Amino acid sequence: MYLPGKEIYNNFFNDKFNLNENWIYKRTGIKKRYWAEDEKASEIAIKSVENLIKTNEDINIKNIGLIIVASTSFERTMPGISFEIQKKFNIKECMCMDISAGCSGYINAIDIAKKYLDLGEVKSALVVGVEKLSKFIDTEDINTAIILGDGAGATLLGKSENKQYAENIESIGQEGDILTSKENEKIYMDGKKIYKFGTMKVAENIKELLEREELDITKIKYIIPHQSNIRIINSMAERIGAKKGQVYVNIENVGNTFNASIPIALNEIIKDKLLNEKDKIMLVGYGGGLNLGSILIEI
Amino acid sequence: MYLPGKEIYNNFFNDKFNLNENWIYKRTGIKKRYWAEDEKASEIAIKSVENLIKTNEDINIKNIGLIIVASTSFERTMPGISFEIQKKFNIKECMCMDISAGCSGYINAIDIAKKYLDLGEVKSALVVGVEKLSKFIDTEDINTAIILGDGAGATLLGKSENKQYAENIESIGQEGDILTSKENEKIYMDGKKIYKFGTMKVAENIKELLEREELDITKIKYIIPHQSNIRIINSMAERIGAKKGQVYVNIENVGNTFNASIPIALNEIIKDKLLNEKDKIMLVGYGGGLNLGSILIEI
Repeated sequence: MYLPGKEIYNNFFNDKFNLNENWIYKRTGIKKRYWAEDEKASEIAIKSVENLIKTNEDINIKNIGLIIVASTSFERTMPGISFEIQKKFNIKECMCMDISAGCSGYINAIDIAKKYLDLGEVKSALVVGVEKLSKFIDTEDINTAIILGDGAGATLLGKSENKQYAENIESIGQEGDILTSKENEKIYMDGKKIYKFGTMKVAENIKELLEREELDITKIKYIIPHQSNIRIINSMAERIGAKKGQVYVNIENVGNTFNASIPIALNEIIKDKLLNEKDKIMLVGYGGGLNLGSILIEI
Repeated sequence: MYLPGKEIYNNFFNDKFNLNENWIYKRTGIKKRYWAEDEKASEIAIKSVENLIKTNEDINIKNIGLIIVASTSFERTMPGISFEIQKKFNIKECMCMDISAGCSGYINAIDIAKKYLDLGEVKSALVVGVEKLSKFIDTEDINTAIILGDGAGATLLGKSENKQYAENIESIGQEGDILTSKENEKIYMDGKKIYKFGTMKVAENIKELLEREELDITKIKYIIPHQSNIRIINSMAERIGAKKGQVYVNIENVGNTFNASIPIALNEIIKDKLLNEKDKIMLVGYGGGLNLGSILIEI
């Protein structure tokens, strides 16, 4: 993972919006977020891949046959960020593509990579979630300015045999208007409707997948949700009957980083050695589109 | 398919760049292209889907479980064009995503859809290639202004049993600089290098796929290449040993429409009833990224 630029603490907004000291933390669970300065989204993505390689000595870059970048912060139409990563690390015989599917394109990207791995098309796939949301923040809009941050997380997938894997991904374009980019490219969010979507609909999606896989929630070591807002996460956790600590939360230190949020959380979990073989985890994405999806993975 | 806005004939540029009457046609094979006026890229895409439904009475929209839009002309980050299509036609229980992989993202999109169909994840998939390149044309740059056009093509894929299908998709991010969008978002193209790439590398890609599938070029009814420029297409056709008429060309009337070019050509071929069951065709995309790929399909 990589967090660019400067740490922006809540005080920055307290002054601007004339807020009480703890107002932001209580409402969002966020203490700080990172806003990039000169770095482009492609550079933020590349740094996360550099960190992935640095911390995993046994990675064989030559085996990467697929690079997918999920983002909403694409800064130019061509070449895509995935192609920039291929170039930077001189990866040969590789397919590249960028995916845009709201805040949870990372979930789609993981699932596409899994399909190519399962079908034996590639040996190893690199999936990167990256955002430079600071570029699209309307700093006068308290609903989005206080929560959004920049960052990237890189995930390397290999082929697994006899491991449980299942997904439940769905889109609801019919309700796309509640989280959108405006004419001036700034992000608009209908907080109340997003809250309802992020709690009820997402909880339903998770429960459907557990039911289909005949798994009780207690069998899941960690649910790793998109870090949207602590209130949404807590309400969703309650609805699915998760016990304390089972839903992984790191929003406090990074804010809401859209497509980067799940891989950043996953990176922390792996770094802290919280997972053992055969553990089951669930990645849960949701956001603009509307788009949402859960992925069950056996370690 | 759908072609928006106004027909722009070569005369428009002859005056502007002080060219002889036949200069553009001789160099590019293009007589006209379409430039959208008020229509957004999402509206152009939706029109192509409307036309798909109108001309195919037996389409069951309810079976569409996946919508992928390939483009380089995304006009906002959220919601994506695929989500706009889902909304417009009120398609339920469906996954949506937009893909950006240079001029040949349509090839990647078809291949992803095929994977989801093969694995039984969806019954039917809608793949749309759309461009509104007129928005990104540098009208002072003769290398791009005279060739680029707007348009969309929509393709509905169903599951096929016992039909040959094979692909050869690869990216070369290392050479991404020869076709890119500049700081001002305008498209830049190094004509000479693109010519070399579009002839030699693309011909190699096609030959590799034929060899792998143990097929002689004579067994292919139509090669349907990205309509980039008649000189590139003719030189590529010669290199792969195609006979006259075997490589389908329609650039004359539409120009170079990036991700829309293959589905538009495919639409014409189907409309003109040029295909019979068991015919083999090959879709060949190439362009920015760099990205390229061939797909062999048995009808």
